[in-house]
Amino acid sequence: MLVSGRRRLLTALLQAQKWRFQPSRDMRLVQFQAPHLVGPHLGLETGNGGGVINLNAFDPTLPKTMTQFLEQGEATLSVARRALAAQLPVLPRSEVTFLAPVTRPDKVVCVGMNYADHCKEQNVPVPKEPIIFSKFASSIVGPYDEVVLPPESQEVDWEAELAVVIGKKGKHIKATDAMAHVAGFTVAHDVSARDWLTTRNGKQWLLGKDTFCPLGPALVTKDSVADPHNLKICCRVNGEVVQSSNTNQMVFKTEDLIAWVSQFVTFYPGDVILTGTPPGVGVFRKPPVFLKKGDEVQCEIEELGVIINKVV
Amino acid sequence: MLVSGRRRLLTALLQAQKWRFQPSRDMRLVQFQAPHLVGPHLGLETGNGGGVINLNAFDPTLPKTMTQFLEQGEATLSVARRALAAQLPVLPRSEVTFLAPVTRPDKVVCVGMNYADHCKEQNVPVPKEPIIFSKFASSIVGPYDEVVLPPESQEVDWEAELAVVIGKKGKHIKATDAMAHVAGFTVAHDVSARDWLTTRNGKQWLLGKDTFCPLGPALVTKDSVADPHNLKICCRVNGEVVQSSNTNQMVFKTEDLIAWVSQFVTFYPGDVILTGTPPGVGVFRKPPVFLKKGDEVQCEIEELGVIINKVV
Repeated sequence: MLVSGRRRLLTALLQAQKWRFQPSRDMRLVQFQAPHLVGPHLGLETGNGGGVINLNAFDPTLPKTMTQFLEQGEATLSVARRALAAQLPVLPRSEVTFLAPVTRPDKVVCVGMNYADHCKEQNVPVPKEPIIFSKFASSIVGPYDEVVLPPESQEVDWEAELAVVIGKKGKHIKATDAMAHVAGFTVAHDVSARDWLTTRNGKQWLLGKDTFCPLGPALVTKDSVADPHNLKICCRVNGEVVQSSNTNQMVFKTEDLIAWVSQFVTFYPGDVILTGTPPGVGVFRKPPVFLKKGDEVQCEIEELGVIINKVV
Repeated sequence: MLVSGRRRLLTALLQAQKWRFQPSRDMRLVQFQAPHLVGPHLGLETGNGGGVINLNAFDPTLPKTMTQFLEQGEATLSVARRALAAQLPVLPRSEVTFLAPVTRPDKVVCVGMNYADHCKEQNVPVPKEPIIFSKFASSIVGPYDEVVLPPESQEVDWEAELAVVIGKKGKHIKATDAMAHVAGFTVAHDVSARDWLTTRNGKQWLLGKDTFCPLGPALVTKDSVADPHNLKICCRVNGEVVQSSNTNQMVFKTEDLIAWVSQFVTFYPGDVILTGTPPGVGVFRKPPVFLKKGDEVQCEIEELGVIINKVV
């Protein structure tokens, strides 16, 4: 049984630091707000769970949104690298509000049934081609924001997922070229309304409900991740581990997914791909368990970080 | 049988002017490019099928994209009204390239089975609640652009639709307040891959394929449309009328759709709602007929205009 209870964010964050501590030279791009700053800013998280360097203060000519930052490619990335190498003031984590590392991208592409162990859990064969659906970009919220339960669904489920963030525009991208189009990786909670998925007329679309895509805390650039397809991935509900797997279980890897989807649609900088969830979702428990008001969900991926979202 | 054949754009446009001619005081907002201008500009179409007034030349402080224009609300609309009232130079239609009136909005919401006569054609009851799905924003192309057939689908079908463009951000919008959130209306071709809709794993998502959402030519502001729910709507394939109905057949009107969808998602300025298609689609013909390379599809709505898209 899942035990409900409140936890203070700081405690939860400290508890979450189980895995390898990040060297601070990794590039962990964030969007954040702070009381002394007007509007969203771009920053660097100084290691997994660390404070934030204000990139816009380091170079006032940098854009203030991640999408614009990514659109400028190597020019802005090199500024961020210089900032990493410099000794810059660090805003304590307690003084900043983290936004999703990407907000209002052109598209959020989702992949179903993409973990071999998740297919096994359901006793179904692994798919022969990627199963693709989508969320509205407006469903994205910050890494510590609340997930709002819709009164229309009684079966809202958790799904921890590795998210890929696109860095370079492209169509008909070959798998062998795909990593050149990736900016980096982050953690996603692909909140899913099971009853709407399976029984209601609208089916898939409610997945795109506001707040149903917490993301963050940082866009960890691809060169900062040793192997995106060998990372522990975990989901905890009220502190209890409900999903625990590894991204090496992914059926279609990042490169395959980009090649497949880009046959049909153009990818733009900032686009997000949610790469599917491992076993342990609530709907396949006996009896099934769903999220309820007051629950706290932590989705964590090794090297990338943890997002913590309260259900309200 | 549908007869394939090339038609020159001008001829087609002239043929399309069957219905009421627009008085030039109607506000018909467009996005366009011209050889002497750098990048996309905002303009006013001088009546249905007329030339274009360059709004950015009239007031260089105006934004150059429709989404930004709409975000500024009454401030920018009043500038456009002044431009309408002034005697301004008109660029001939032959000298401009029309873009979709909205490009890369936050979301494109689609409604299925929303014409009473289309339900009757299929011998199914009218839905009790709106059937919602979505397209990727990147599927939008201009009013005279080409629709690219994907090699993966053998059953690409036509669907002329009334498109609603949102002008004001909102969530949990009441039906009685909904029109305050509407900027205006335009014509859409909701190109649909039937085989992917019904048989492939990905199902709905291929609807969002690049070029599968021609839109335009103008965003006709709501105060310029006598009654959006009493407009003739028509689709011609290679000159043959294949759909002919009236928006008075819509099961859920604009206000109902905005109220329903905004329960779940926030609407932003520039968001597009495709309100469903009337009878006459290819899949229900006996035998079924689908689009093939070389076909030319014209979707026309009274007062709003006509979009003409060649299939390649």
